[in-house]
Amino acid sequence: MYLNMMLTKARTSLIKSLKLKKIRIQEELFVIEGAKNVIELLKSNFLLHSLYATTTFLDANRKLVKSLNAEIFTATDTQLAAAGNFRTNNSVIALAKIKENKPLSAGAGEFALILDDIRDPGNLGTIIRVCDWYGISKMIASTSCVDLYNPKVIAATMGSFTRVNLFYTNLKAFMENKNGPYYGAFLDGDNIHTIKFKSRGYIVIGNESTGISREISALTDYRITIPGTGHMESLNAGIATAVVLDNLYRTKRDKRHCPPSRL
Amino acid sequence: MYLNMMLTKARTSLIKSLKLKKIRIQEELFVIEGAKNVIELLKSNFLLHSLYATTTFLDANRKLVKSLNAEIFTATDTQLAAAGNFRTNNSVIALAKIKENKPLSAGAGEFALILDDIRDPGNLGTIIRVCDWYGISKMIASTSCVDLYNPKVIAATMGSFTRVNLFYTNLKAFMENKNGPYYGAFLDGDNIHTIKFKSRGYIVIGNESTGISREISALTDYRITIPGTGHMESLNAGIATAVVLDNLYRTKRDKRHCPPSRL
Repeated sequence: MYLNMMLTKARTSLIKSLKLKKIRIQEELFVIEGAKNVIELLKSNFLLHSLYATTTFLDANRKLVKSLNAEIFTATDTQLAAAGNFRTNNSVIALAKIKENKPLSAGAGEFALILDDIRDPGNLGTIIRVCDWYGISKMIASTSCVDLYNPKVIAATMGSFTRVNLFYTNLKAFMENKNGPYYGAFLDGDNIHTIKFKSRGYIVIGNESTGISREISALTDYRITIPGTGHMESLNAGIATAVVLDNLYRTKRDKRHCPPSRL
Repeated sequence: MYLNMMLTKARTSLIKSLKLKKIRIQEELFVIEGAKNVIELLKSNFLLHSLYATTTFLDANRKLVKSLNAEIFTATDTQLAAAGNFRTNNSVIALAKIKENKPLSAGAGEFALILDDIRDPGNLGTIIRVCDWYGISKMIASTSCVDLYNPKVIAATMGSFTRVNLFYTNLKAFMENKNGPYYGAFLDGDNIHTIKFKSRGYIVIGNESTGISREISALTDYRITIPGTGHMESLNAGIATAVVLDNLYRTKRDKRHCPPSRL
């Protein structure tokens, strides 16, 4: 059973302060908001620090909550909305321990995603969600990318942050030291509808405004492009990732390297 | 040459008031912000009402501005940021006349997009941008969809609102009276990687949370699905639209019904 402590002012301040990366690093904690995201968190291997929830949420998730080894506070939805970042995700907030930044690379028969300077939290969250959809579980991000533990990133993942791992590193050094092939998404590359992807490698997605940087571009092996009518200059980074991964998923499935789709 | 009027308080109030749909309908005007969107507007067949810009913007776009038949006001970026909705789009704001809600339907060898209850302005804007990319120029939206002329929708289109037309109507009546086929995006349909699209028809995209409504679902001819690993319940509506249209574009190109891609 859970302790029935009420949300305190000190805890409200702690939750609010974790909006700042500096405080997140110092406390080694991050905020997860809303029923969908928190339930995924509770089922994952993230280490829960504390839970702040309405009695309605606690009652509805009694089984899940019962087994938790963390402080649990009850709060009203108004209190939760005031403490959190999203007015609509107000039935539950969790604090969990930030994971160590562990090195990742694409294994045999596997593709990983590389992000060069993705700045928008909503975009990173969407990209993580898209990776989860297509079964990409490893992402390598430049240190200039937005922080995974930013509350807006976590919210936009809709729980996928629990299944997709992200490694922040110096991309140039990473790409120089690891075997590719590296497929970079450009505006002047080969048509992704006709390209034959290798059985393992990396997809590289660039910055929202400027695309893949010159330095990283020089290290890519293949330039790939999403065909279109040419009226628009570019697609949003999340959209581009989804379309590229859909094409990769199709070719990987054709080669039977991937588990069959659930259809 | 343009008149060098300064932005007045009355005009600032007018711009601000157009955030409300009620006022937009009353004034038959909408707001376009930021250089990219406004330049696309000036090149389009939308009727310009007035322009509010920094002298830097006016100087840089002298040729385009010279030929305009509308009132032009100069303003500082601070004034423009205060009048507009986006702090970063502060070099120019335009007001233009709302277009008549004209009936649209898919012509021979053409696909149109149907939107059932899309509520989020960012999603509608992204969907319009994606349609533009894949050469879909007609959209039919349920009257419950968010208003095209909402400033957040216009901003998210990145100028594509000038090339994609949208018709708001009673979807049920529309679908009962027009020939399909209607391809609805569902979670339990046929795999879009293997489906053979007809040469004309409609793609139906549903609400962000609840998908395609039961009423509209009953009128679809084919249920189509984006394959994935099955960890996630769904993809964002903008992402789903992009992936479906990419698959449609591929099959249409294979049949040579579409102009070849620019690659």
